[in-house]
Amino acid sequence: MATVLMTLGACSTQGNENQETAANDLDKGQAAIENIMTRTSVRQYKDQPVEQEKIDIMLKAAMAAPTAVNLQPWHFIVITDKQTIGLLSGQQPTNAPLLIAVCGDTDKTTTPDGKMKLPDFWVEDVSAATENLLLAAHALGLGAVWTGVYPAMDRTAEVANVLNCPKNIVPMAVVRIGYPDESPEPKNKFKEENISYNKFGGKKE
Amino acid sequence: MATVLMTLGACSTQGNENQETAANDLDKGQAAIENIMTRTSVRQYKDQPVEQEKIDIMLKAAMAAPTAVNLQPWHFIVITDKQTIGLLSGQQPTNAPLLIAVCGDTDKTTTPDGKMKLPDFWVEDVSAATENLLLAAHALGLGAVWTGVYPAMDRTAEVANVLNCPKNIVPMAVVRIGYPDESPEPKNKFKEENISYNKFGGKKE
Repeated sequence: MATVLMTLGACSTQGNENQETAANDLDKGQAAIENIMTRTSVRQYKDQPVEQEKIDIMLKAAMAAPTAVNLQPWHFIVITDKQTIGLLSGQQPTNAPLLIAVCGDTDKTTTPDGKMKLPDFWVEDVSAATENLLLAAHALGLGAVWTGVYPAMDRTAEVANVLNCPKNIVPMAVVRIGYPDESPEPKNKFKEENISYNKFGGKKE
Repeated sequence: MATVLMTLGACSTQGNENQETAANDLDKGQAAIENIMTRTSVRQYKDQPVEQEKIDIMLKAAMAAPTAVNLQPWHFIVITDKQTIGLLSGQQPTNAPLLIAVCGDTDKTTTPDGKMKLPDFWVEDVSAATENLLLAAHALGLGAVWTGVYPAMDRTAEVANVLNCPKNIVPMAVVRIGYPDESPEPKNKFKEENISYNKFGGKKE
């Protein structure tokens, strides 16, 4: 990855006066891509709480995700209470000191003028927010794993019940977060067969 | 953001011998978070093609996203053919030199042993991949915008038809990508009211 990016230097520099800035931008861009490529699910955590400052950064990153017509149809529930963590972990106990339940808010799926109704796009918006949250966790030296909730409806009802969610707040995922107590290798999921060019099945020219 | 992260230095250093590495990790983490916070939708592009090398990096980033039980239920269609770009742009013409259609593959929603069927989680997986793709584009000095397709079924059928997708390949989004010809400010979407603690409506202790 580093090698690939170094060869892109030429594309980013436009004239000598900008070369230093461009090199700096390239380093930053490279770091951002490395962060994406090295993130992986972490399920074992140290017995160490996550600082509120880091929680705030993760929430800011999550809310920086794009949403369909900027509806921001989401709600985040930060859980550090041990009993609630136990209740939410269900069949898969965890030693995570922090959970964040990432929820859709179905009351926020219509534009303010009432003209555009997007009842079903919140899942995509909330998923993008969850990915940002995972990437921010990794960037902050934390480990995290996305555990699925919606649209498994039994699980959704269970989580909504524990968190006292009103009808419009739909828990989509529960992210477990903590200081990593394991160092799993990121999976290599890149497959050429999953890419087409110009139409399905089309080859690279 | 930079200020907030600088104050985290103390959390990341554990003993003097690791201080240099930790500082380096902190810089990289900070760059990754800045990349998340400064990404925004870009809709105007220069008349300049996107290098294949950058396309490859974006696809690798997309496929680094997590997927439910690692099913990787996705397919990516890279579109540079001008006629196809025109056909896909529909009501909203674009001067983007590159589109990437991010699709679900509903044939990949069951575990190999057939025991676990997850017909509806592919939307979340593909959304996480799309967010990674947008973040990688931004990190590479490109601009991009997510345009919604699925679950608007008319639009989904239209895009699937143009791209000759078989039934199992469901276009979820079409991402427009190019060198930015505008510099929109990132929206500030952080709202305290969208955060609860320990249960819905719960306040920070």
